[in-house]
Order: sequence, then C-alpha cells, then structure tokens
Amino acid sequence: MILLMYEPVPAHLQRLQKAAPDREIAIAHSLEEACRLIEKAEIVLGNRYFIQSLPFAERLRWMQSNSVGVDIILEEKQRLLDKGIILTCARGVYDAELAEHTVTLLLTLFRGIHLLRDEQRERSWQRHRLRTLNGSRCLILGWGSLAQAIARLITALGGRVSAVRNSPDDSVDHGIALFGQQNWQLQLPETDALINCLPKTVETRHLVNSHVLDQLPHDAFVVNIGRGGTLDDQALLERVQAGRLAGAALDVFEEEPLPLSHPMWSEPRIMITPHVGRSLEGPEYKWQSLFEENLARYVRGETLLNIVNYEKGY
Amino acid sequence: MILLMYEPVPAHLQRLQKAAPDREIAIAHSLEEACRLIEKAEIVLGNRYFIQSLPFAERLRWMQSNSVGVDIILEEKQRLLDKGIILTCARGVYDAELAEHTVTLLLTLFRGIHLLRDEQRERSWQRHRLRTLNGSRCLILGWGSLAQAIARLITALGGRVSAVRNSPDDSVDHGIALFGQQNWQLQLPETDALINCLPKTVETRHLVNSHVLDQLPHDAFVVNIGRGGTLDDQALLERVQAGRLAGAALDVFEEEPLPLSHPMWSEPRIMITPHVGRSLEGPEYKWQSLFEENLARYVRGETLLNIVNYEKGY
Repeated sequence: MILLMYEPVPAHLQRLQKAAPDREIAIAHSLEEACRLIEKAEIVLGNRYFIQSLPFAERLRWMQSNSVGVDIILEEKQRLLDKGIILTCARGVYDAELAEHTVTLLLTLFRGIHLLRDEQRERSWQRHRLRTLNGSRCLILGWGSLAQAIARLITALGGRVSAVRNSPDDSVDHGIALFGQQNWQLQLPETDALINCLPKTVETRHLVNSHVLDQLPHDAFVVNIGRGGTLDDQALLERVQAGRLAGAALDVFEEEPLPLSHPMWSEPRIMITPHVGRSLEGPEYKWQSLFEENLARYVRGETLLNIVNYEKGY
Repeated sequence: MILLMYEPVPAHLQRLQKAAPDREIAIAHSLEEACRLIEKAEIVLGNRYFIQSLPFAERLRWMQSNSVGVDIILEEKQRLLDKGIILTCARGVYDAELAEHTVTLLLTLFRGIHLLRDEQRERSWQRHRLRTLNGSRCLILGWGSLAQAIARLITALGGRVSAVRNSPDDSVDHGIALFGQQNWQLQLPETDALINCLPKTVETRHLVNSHVLDQLPHDAFVVNIGRGGTLDDQALLERVQAGRLAGAALDVFEEEPLPLSHPMWSEPRIMITPHVGRSLEGPEYKWQSLFEENLARYVRGETLLNIVNYEKGY
C-alpha cells in the first residue's frame, strides 16, 4: 500500500495510480489516520505526519520526502536504518526558485535595496555609492545541484564564482575553482560575498562560525540559503552590528520562525526573508513529477532518484 | 582650449593631455570660472555649469556630456544647433550597473523583498507564495545598448524577453522579438513585467500612460529605469493603489528628488530607489576612458563615439 501524507490533486493521483496500477493508494488526512494507515504501508510519499507515525510502520520500505534538506527526518535515522527504509529527498526540484532567491538576496545587499526601503519609509531621497555583484568575488559553500544553479546565475550576472566542496582536495568543475577542506578558508580574505547553501549534518553544524567570519574582509556580505544551524547566527549578528561585516541576507535561521525577541530582526544591515527561498505552493506541488517518476522506478525495480546517503546526511 | 567641467584625477588629466598634446586644458571650479573660460573653449568635457555657461561660448565645436540621457542639455537644442556644436553622450558607460539595478528591481518585485522588509520591521514571520522572474514574460521599452544588456541578464535568469523598438515594423534581433510602433501594444496583455528604459524626448513623454497601463494584466509589474516623464507616475500610482497592477519599482521620476509630500512614498507595493541605477562615484569616473578615447578621435579628425542625433533626441 502507498500512503500519501498530503492531499493530491486528481491528475497527480491518477498518474501515481497509473505508475503503480496494482497497488492501493491511501491518503492520511490526520495524524490519527496516518498512525493507523502507516502500519500496512510499503511506501510513504510526503513528510506530513511521517515522523510521528513512523513508530507504527511495520512493512515500510521506502519514504519519499518532499523536502530538499532531510535533517529533521534524520533525527530518526537509527529507526529508519533498523527498519531498512530507503529515504529519498526532493533535491533539485526547487533549484530554480532557490537560486533565483539567492541571487535576489545578493543583489539586495549589493544594491542596498533593504536600506533604500527603510529610507523610503522616511521619505528620504539620498543618492549613494552602490556596489555591483558584477565583478565581485563570490564563494559558495556547497557544490550540489543548487550551488551549481546559483553559480550559473552569478556568472551570468558578471560575478566571479568559486565554491567549497565536501572533499579533501581542490579541483575544477565547468571552469569553477572548487576548494576542498584543506584550503577553502584561504579564500575567505578574497571574498566579497559568502553564500552558504550547505545541508545540515553533524559535520556542518556551525561550520560558518566566528573563526570563519573573522577571515572575511570588513566589506563582505553573507547570504544563508542552505539550512539554519550551519551558520552561527549570533556570531554573524555581532559582527554586522560591530561593522566587522557589511551586511547579510538570511532566509534560514537556527530557530524558525525567528523568535519575536531575537535582536536579528532590528539590525538594519541584515535582510530577513522568512524561509521563502522555496515559497508556499499547493494544491499543485513542484515535487509531483519527481514522486511519479520515483514511484514508476520503484515498481519497475529500478534505482530511485535522490536517495539520501545516511552516512553523509544528504 | 579644452574645458573640463569637473575635477580630474591626475592620471586621467595626463591621459587627456597625451591625447591632445598641443592643446591647453582648463578646469572650471565654479560657475563664474566656467562662464569666463568657455568663451575660448573649443571642447567642453562634462555637464557641470555647461547649460548656464553655454551662452558665453564663442568657438565651441564639441560638447561631451557625462550623462546617458541628454534631455536636459537638449532644452538648449536650438542654441547648440545655431552654434554648430556636436553633442556626444555617455551611452553605454553605465550599462552594466544600470542593467544590474534593473534586474535587482525586477527580482525585488517578483520575490517581494520590499514587502518582506516591511514585515521584518514588524517582526512578522509570514511565509508567502512568491513568483519567479524565471519563466515570466518581460517587455522592454527601448532597444539601445542598455535594453540589450538588460535583455541578456533577464534571459540568463530564465525570463522571456521581447522589446519595443523605435521603428514602424516588427523584427527579430539576436533571437529577441522586437515590436514596432504599430504592434507593440498588442503585447501588453501578455506581459508580466513592463520595463521602461526609454530616453526622454518629445515623442516619449508619457508614452507609458493610463491607456498603456490599462492593457497590462492585473498581476503585472512595472519597472522604470529610463527617464522620469516617459512614464505617467500618477497614472501608475492610481493603478497600483487600486490593485489594478501588482506593483512597481521606480528609479526615476517625473519630479526629482521625489517631493516629500508625494503619495508615491507611502504606497507599499511601489519600491522607490532614488536615481541610483547609476550610483554616485568620484573622484574616479566610469566615463573617463570614453572622454579620453573621444578626445583622441577628435584630434585625429575621426568620427566621435556616441554622437547625439538632434532629430531623435538621443
């Protein structure tokens, strides 16, 4: 049985049924229903209710997440491993929107849109010297499909891109210099904008910490589009407040929603967007075709797309 | 004699002198000085004091403006024509910065950065459905070097571009559909973002008027990076206020600085930037190399770059 943790639009449901004509498809509309239905499910599609109902699963073989980052699901990693469940994620599905949001945040910083908006509220007409992304040196943390999409856009806008890859040595990919664990920090003093799109794993927690931030030039910008917790928010805030960094634009945070009392809200040189790099959607979802394709692969016994490596955590 | 209406940095002054070794170079530090010095000037480089001192010019042959738009200088068109003065402008010099600012304004609208900034001030964490420039239909008014630079960036970001050219018929340039005066308005109902980068001439005044705006879809955005007065600001404001258009981002206005009392300031769905598409610079200026090249051409008797067509007004 295939258990859907979301309300499918009719056409999507039909395509799922066509991909697996011999299997029953059930839909969980509540946590109670999920806990009851998951018992007999071989496949779960979608996140909602999954973590809470997982303990009741008895024959689950495959879980398809609708998230790109699976750090929250991997808090149940041991249980997933014990039950021999394959986990697949939504990697790639949101690359276009996330890359566009990343470039929007970068351009917001370089052109000062957030500060000009504040001045607009004061009806203040002040011309400024503004910087350009064009010609600026951008260092991307991560080199998955999202990082590569971001690199393409920045390059098209005239920015100079290098990136940091999860590997010991340096290399080159499509003309982009990639730095490994040994050398990447040497790039920091030559960086105008540091762009974090790391997944959250045991190894990446606070990877961008005060030590890393202190190696950036005073006029550098920081963007976080990856996952809260891979950046030390407090260390960043202190450096922006002190004028030790020029500014930041953040879409993800260590605590979400960002608490009302958090001092980040009121630092003018930090632009906050509320985790909308991948923005709300529904009743149609961008992951529908991935789910349909992966279900067809599963039924045919083929290798699934986007299998999560439990070792690496993404 | 060559009269500079600005304070040159030493290296630039040296390069000018090298381009015209036999000529005297004078610098006007005040309006009085400009009015006195221009009498013997054959060449004027730079705008400052030019309009006011022009009546005193007796042997002026060539004026090199540091502006892209020369509408203000052309208020003295008859006097320039009477004296047989060639006018050249700074076309192209600011394309990279202006195109980047244009794309920043577009992305601000599509990703809602201006509205998210307002919510940040309220400490409001609200996730939204956001649109993407990727896949959206952009219609650029104008097809000079700036419009073409904008078209390249939008295309790289996945937007679909067509443009409107000052010519009666439709055509195609580098794969971009160009609409002439006869058909361009037919494109308006199919437009997600209208981008105005027209020069200000007698013909373009209020070219984007209520009749044009009313043909756009209700969810369309408008960007003005060209010149104030080519867009009817009041007509735009009324339509955004009424929800008849989704929003606008404006860098130029009919009246600049935008008056304190103008209702535009407080319309949340309009993002105002204070004519910073080309932002402040100095003591080095991006037009220095154009001035040097054109002076060398003048001395050699060659055709100058960026000659303004008095008929067309740009």
